[in-house]
Amino acid sequence: MNDSEIQLNKDGTLRHFLTIDGLNREILTQIMDTAEKFIDFGKREIKKAPLLRGKTVVNLFFEPSTRTRTTFEIAAKRLSADVINLSAQRLSTSKGETLLDTARNLQAMHADLFVIRDTHAGAAYLVAQHLDPDVRVINAGDGRHAHPTQAMLDMFTIRQRYKDFSGLSVAIVGDILHSRVARSQIQAFRLLKVRDVRVIGPNTLLPTDVESLGVTSFSDMREGLEGVDVIIMLRLQRERMTGQLIASEQEYFNFYGLTDEKYKFAKPDAIVMHPGPINRGLEISSEIADGIHSVILPQVANGIAIRMSVLSLVMGGSAAQAAGGNQ
Amino acid sequence: MNDSEIQLNKDGTLRHFLTIDGLNREILTQIMDTAEKFIDFGKREIKKAPLLRGKTVVNLFFEPSTRTRTTFEIAAKRLSADVINLSAQRLSTSKGETLLDTARNLQAMHADLFVIRDTHAGAAYLVAQHLDPDVRVINAGDGRHAHPTQAMLDMFTIRQRYKDFSGLSVAIVGDILHSRVARSQIQAFRLLKVRDVRVIGPNTLLPTDVESLGVTSFSDMREGLEGVDVIIMLRLQRERMTGQLIASEQEYFNFYGLTDEKYKFAKPDAIVMHPGPINRGLEISSEIADGIHSVILPQVANGIAIRMSVLSLVMGGSAAQAAGGNQ
Amino acid sequence: MNDSEIQLNKDGTLRHFLTIDGLNREILTQIMDTAEKFIDFGKREIKKAPLLRGKTVVNLFFEPSTRTRTTFEIAAKRLSADVINLSAQRLSTSKGETLLDTARNLQAMHADLFVIRDTHAGAAYLVAQHLDPDVRVINAGDGRHAHPTQAMLDMFTIRQRYKDFSGLSVAIVGDILHSRVARSQIQAFRLLKVRDVRVIGPNTLLPTDVESLGVTSFSDMREGLEGVDVIIMLRLQRERMTGQLIASEQEYFNFYGLTDEKYKFAKPDAIVMHPGPINRGLEISSEIADGIHSVILPQVANGIAIRMSVLSLVMGGSAAQAAGGNQ
Repeated sequence: MNDSEIQLNKDGTLRHFLTIDGLNREILTQIMDTAEKFIDFGKREIKKAPLLRGKTVVNLFFEPSTRTRTTFEIAAKRLSADVINLSAQRLSTSKGETLLDTARNLQAMHADLFVIRDTHAGAAYLVAQHLDPDVRVINAGDGRHAHPTQAMLDMFTIRQRYKDFSGLSVAIVGDILHSRVARSQIQAFRLLKVRDVRVIGPNTLLPTDVESLGVTSFSDMREGLEGVDVIIMLRLQRERMTGQLIASEQEYFNFYGLTDEKYKFAKPDAIVMHPGPINRGLEISSEIADGIHSVILPQVANGIAIRMSVLSLVMGGSAAQAAGGNQ
Repeated sequence: MNDSEIQLNKDGTLRHFLTIDGLNREILTQIMDTAEKFIDFGKREIKKAPLLRGKTVVNLFFEPSTRTRTTFEIAAKRLSADVINLSAQRLSTSKGETLLDTARNLQAMHADLFVIRDTHAGAAYLVAQHLDPDVRVINAGDGRHAHPTQAMLDMFTIRQRYKDFSGLSVAIVGDILHSRVARSQIQAFRLLKVRDVRVIGPNTLLPTDVESLGVTSFSDMREGLEGVDVIIMLRLQRERMTGQLIASEQEYFNFYGLTDEKYKFAKPDAIVMHPGPINRGLEISSEIADGIHSVILPQVANGIAIRMSVLSLVMGGSAAQAAGGNQ
Repeated sequence: MNDSEIQLNKDGTLRHFLTIDGLNREILTQIMDTAEKFIDFGKREIKKAPLLRGKTVVNLFFEPSTRTRTTFEIAAKRLSADVINLSAQRLSTSKGETLLDTARNLQAMHADLFVIRDTHAGAAYLVAQHLDPDVRVINAGDGRHAHPTQAMLDMFTIRQRYKDFSGLSVAIVGDILHSRVARSQIQAFRLLKVRDVRVIGPNTLLPTDVESLGVTSFSDMREGLEGVDVIIMLRLQRERMTGQLIASEQEYFNFYGLTDEKYKFAKPDAIVMHPGPINRGLEISSEIADGIHSVILPQVANGIAIRMSVLSLVMGGSAAQAAGGNQ
């Protein structure tokens, strides 16, 4: 079974959301169109819709995360689900229980939907593959493999500014090698027919075969940013920066940190994105992060809408229902 | 005051659920009959009943636990309660506050029901004894003493297979000495008039006076399992296995681990149970754990139904109400 | 902008609740009057009011706390809010994200109200100052600065016993120097025109300029307690008691621990208060803590009512609404 088959129902609707790979443009567009309707929802007096009422959503996080877990928790609660948070240290996997045993147990408790983050690539896929057909799985980040809801909130944020994807030129900057975010973004850009996708970083942080993904690679910011519409800065994992991959934080910032000066290489009014949390003065300057071209906070707001969209779509809610009124 | 008096209201209905000891067959049957009605509930589109709406349920866990806490949290939320999780490390008992002070404070906040797990035997009893009469307490495991909801979900699982308890032959295998689960099971089997209850384990893991509990003890699996209808494997606490109580994990598995080979000693089609989480290859082989005679996952599903049953019964909900519709 | 301006809306109603400083007697009275209506609420069969339905309340706790977080969580849930708990260790501030970045991100997720506890004075103020006007902030304790909801539940508890504040004589005993509770209480007493406010403690635990706050200071319990109507014992932070500030715990108890004997210095039937959790035998004897003059547990119950009051007031609920029926 391939990525496409496991993720889609026979009628082509979304069943699990594990990776962008194997999906199609229509699904990505549907996710964004549904999210559109949840944007206004966040501004309502009463942010509560009954779509997931009486459903049990389990946040199964085997890797520390605040932001992503919180966005899924908020999204699920606004859809009226019962939310159970299980984080790594509290899980009995430390007692030798496997991921699948844990998931099967939760399935036996009639959990309806799993949001899974794990340090191992393929964890969410594994669960989706082995659980009963009526359980749904959303990948909230698995190793270096994929982070599809992050990619979709990024696409959605880009679409808010630029109506059409096809003419765009975008650059992803930083630690491409270890980034599941970059991988999912690149796949989404390809499905959405983005003309020009670039990755920029020191050679030590670029996969050797990166151009086989259909992107152009650069190790120089001036060249890489030239004329782009969208600059996506990646988070630098300080814990990985042990002298082997980059010389020093200061040097990294000098070469790849986004500053007012380097921003000028891009197209005027290019938007600046970052999946957060940001390291001020490491991969991005505060001037840029808080500046008028930054869409970092809109990304966060869109993250809720995208997660509400995906949660409701995999649970069988149509876009029409999703737009529905209060409970 | 004895166990019976504190646990029952004057009209004989369930007030607290602290231990099987001192209860009667009618109460146990009522708990199972009520759980029966929550079995279908788990399969509903909208798993939400209003029985505990506006009630505050506090999970007071002074000992790490994922599974038990999660089942109580799911059960209480499906009954529409507000659930507050307090786990050991977050509790101010670390600042010198006693268990009773903590419970009294939560009572002052108008908590309605405490689910208590503690490393000390009698913790839940202590709280039940000293709190106001309108507060309810459920024991979710206290030291080596009791784990009554686990015992009841086990009884319920057995009843799903065998209509009548009285003719059964059952064996509990493993670390009987440290097991609150075994203790509560043995008491429940006695109340339900099970004919033949056996315990099997190395002498170092059997209480010296175990036969005074009304069971027959064995140190050999072939003899102990012969002709039984039910095999209950206990979890081996790896942290206790420091060479004094068992020679090695491998040797333990050789003698007491349930395998296809040893399973054949039992009656054909005997069911295999385990409170979980399982240690594959230590007390049970994967073939058996995942095999057709295993009811380990049904136990988990039944755990939700039993906890919903007990939560609703101690809060005064009759079986009839419990069967009621959605909110 | 001063404390008064940031905390009040243009029409004089409560916008944020950061400190008692800069507020007025009317606001304090309104908070207590609104809490009054939530007192009966806690005794209802169904403790659920729809006032904050569809609102997202974030408990942002950068300092360990069980009791305060739990009271806010219970209060918000009874008002039907969606509650998100974020505690220090789980927050990405450990990854270098600043408090303001965290708060801005949560604001982008359309959080409506932040309850903030932090080790740094001014944390809640900082957030209130920089966030959008439609977000509300409640200070749940910031460094040594302020703990206004604690002070208000104390005022409310005093008002339950004594109708009028102006004629009262009150003493605050213990570690005044490090106590945000004492600071907020003193400000509240001043606004409520309490005639005689005293602080009692060893010189090492009294601020040097304490009398400039409008209180009289004593280092002797007999003198300090003489004729008071209210005795407020503070919690002694054992972790601060490293020999420099007090000689020994035993000696501290001998001089300042409240016992039956020292209680007699006060006015007959004076009430004894403590913010909890108490250190039995350190700052207070069990006889006093559990005795008939103790209002320590009523303080806890009042803590829920006060927090429901403040939550509903800053969210724009009038006292009339707050008194409303079930959802």
